Amino acid sequence: MRIGAIEAGGTKFVCGIGDENGRFEHRISFPTEHPDQTLPRVITYFQDKGVEAMGIGSFGPIDIRQDSPTYGYVTTTPKPGWGNYDLLGTLKQAFPVPFGFDTDVNAAVYGEVKWGAGQGLSSCLYITVGTGVGIGVYSEGQLVHGLVHPEGGHLLTRRHPEDDFVGSCPYHGDCLEGMAAGPAIEARWGKKGHELPVDHRAWKMEAFYIAQSITDAILLLSPQKIILGGGVMQQPQLYPLIREAVLLNLNGYVSSSAILDHMEEYIVSPGLGQQAGLGGALALGLTAWNNRVSSI
Amino acid sequence: MRIGAIEAGGTKFVCGIGDENGRFEHRISFPTEHPDQTLPRVITYFQDKGVEAMGIGSFGPIDIRQDSPTYGYVTTTPKPGWGNYDLLGTLKQAFPVPFGFDTDVNAAVYGEVKWGAGQGLSSCLYITVGTGVGIGVYSEGQLVHGLVHPEGGHLLTRRHPEDDFVGSCPYHGDCLEGMAAGPAIEARWGKKGHELPVDHRAWKMEAFYIAQSITDAILLLSPQKIILGGGVMQQPQLYPLIREAVLLNLNGYVSSSAILDHMEEYIVSPGLGQQAGLGGALALGLTAWNNRVSSI
Repeated sequence: MRIGAIEAGGTKFVCGIGDENGRFEHRISFPTEHPDQTLPRVITYFQDKGVEAMGIGSFGPIDIRQDSPTYGYVTTTPKPGWGNYDLLGTLKQAFPVPFGFDTDVNAAVYGEVKWGAGQGLSSCLYITVGTGVGIGVYSEGQLVHGLVHPEGGHLLTRRHPEDDFVGSCPYHGDCLEGMAAGPAIEARWGKKGHELPVDHRAWKMEAFYIAQSITDAILLLSPQKIILGGGVMQQPQLYPLIREAVLLNLNGYVSSSAILDHMEEYIVSPGLGQQAGLGGALALGLTAWNNRVSSI
Repeated sequence: MRIGAIEAGGTKFVCGIGDENGRFEHRISFPTEHPDQTLPRVITYFQDKGVEAMGIGSFGPIDIRQDSPTYGYVTTTPKPGWGNYDLLGTLKQAFPVPFGFDTDVNAAVYGEVKWGAGQGLSSCLYITVGTGVGIGVYSEGQLVHGLVHPEGGHLLTRRHPEDDFVGSCPYHGDCLEGMAAGPAIEARWGKKGHELPVDHRAWKMEAFYIAQSITDAILLLSPQKIILGGGVMQQPQLYPLIREAVLLNLNGYVSSSAILDHMEEYIVSPGLGQQAGLGGALALGLTAWNNRVSSI
């Protein structure tokens, strides 16, 4: 079968056509402009492709409460044209097929659980560290929505003792995103992450902040695996530093062999690589198709 | 019908017999001693009472993975006699009825969702602040277990600028429990919480730590409600201080009317009062009975 997948990011849209096994036959990507420009491109791409279902993983905040009158909207973003925009409705009008709709990071964790590093698990986190930080949460076999949806990128941090950077989050200053996202690295060190040497002390500090949030997530949710992706995580030296810092933080308190003895398999890179988000959108579309009796 | 409920605490055991509507006809409580003393008392209490199902909310760490060979065990506690002790198995041998088994705090959140302040919700947290701190997590209509079970009492904290207390947690020093549990209050101020005046600055500091963890829980899980119980929360002046600090931490980032406009109904005291844990054990027993075809 053919399923349409849309990774609706704040910077770029990635669209693809895949099948029920997670394989893509085609992909396309274009910059995110005003929805009046972007949506027609999306619709043109999928037109006459014969997709039987579609899945969207979207930048946010979005409304994912299915019983809400604004279900499927991008809500309070300052991004021109996207505030209070009916993303799902616009696409539904063009394509009368079952739709799955969730946050970009929930899509990513779902893609990883379906076809990536989280296969077979009932609980898993996907943390992306890039231009921003986001955390997708899959728990007890379900994507977590709750009241709005998780916004784990803004978890509070305790400050590294050698760090006097004020933090770059306009809401919280020194939250996780404010201290660890790409722009924070650049503002703190005066260079982009990929311009810093692999043994620069920036990376230990970066690991310190990411590990804190992972520690908190382990304590609050006890996930079976944590998958770390995004542009900043293209620095492979971060993984061992983060694993080490998490073990130090937990100090043996969570008595699980998965954590104590198999940390290299507990905190991992995405099995789908850069395609976790698009693969997740595909998985959301497939699930919508499987549930189509109740969802149309 | 008659359901047996056991709140197995590290300090005391509370046992009760209730019905499918959450009403108790009888309760009893005794100190937690060596299991060789305590379990016979439990068994004697329920003997010949005609209970059709039982539920246990237990101190931990415990094994709640139903497919594990040590399912139902108290695992790594230093408490004499309780380390690696088959709590559930011992009771199952005495009473051949369906059993529910979960952590004390998961039981409490479940009781609140069933019969207390969380009725009708699909996601809710129960945070107890007393001799220790614990967080029960109910998300998307299910109790969260994950790899082991949540241990949210040990979430990392950022330090209050006026606080030089080192922290009382033997594992983490200044984690949430180390900074905010009853023993931390006593160690920091030289008096027990109930001996401090209601306008003592201890309470603002206490609210500061509790609010941090609530903020992190909102960002990571987006719960529909947060219920705060336990001995320390008997100080009613804490609630408004905590609500205020949470709003300050979030700084408008989570755009939900439930948080921005109805904070008094978002962070609340337990609807079941001190009986959340026992009520939750009852609810676990009822659910085990309802699922009995698959669970016996």
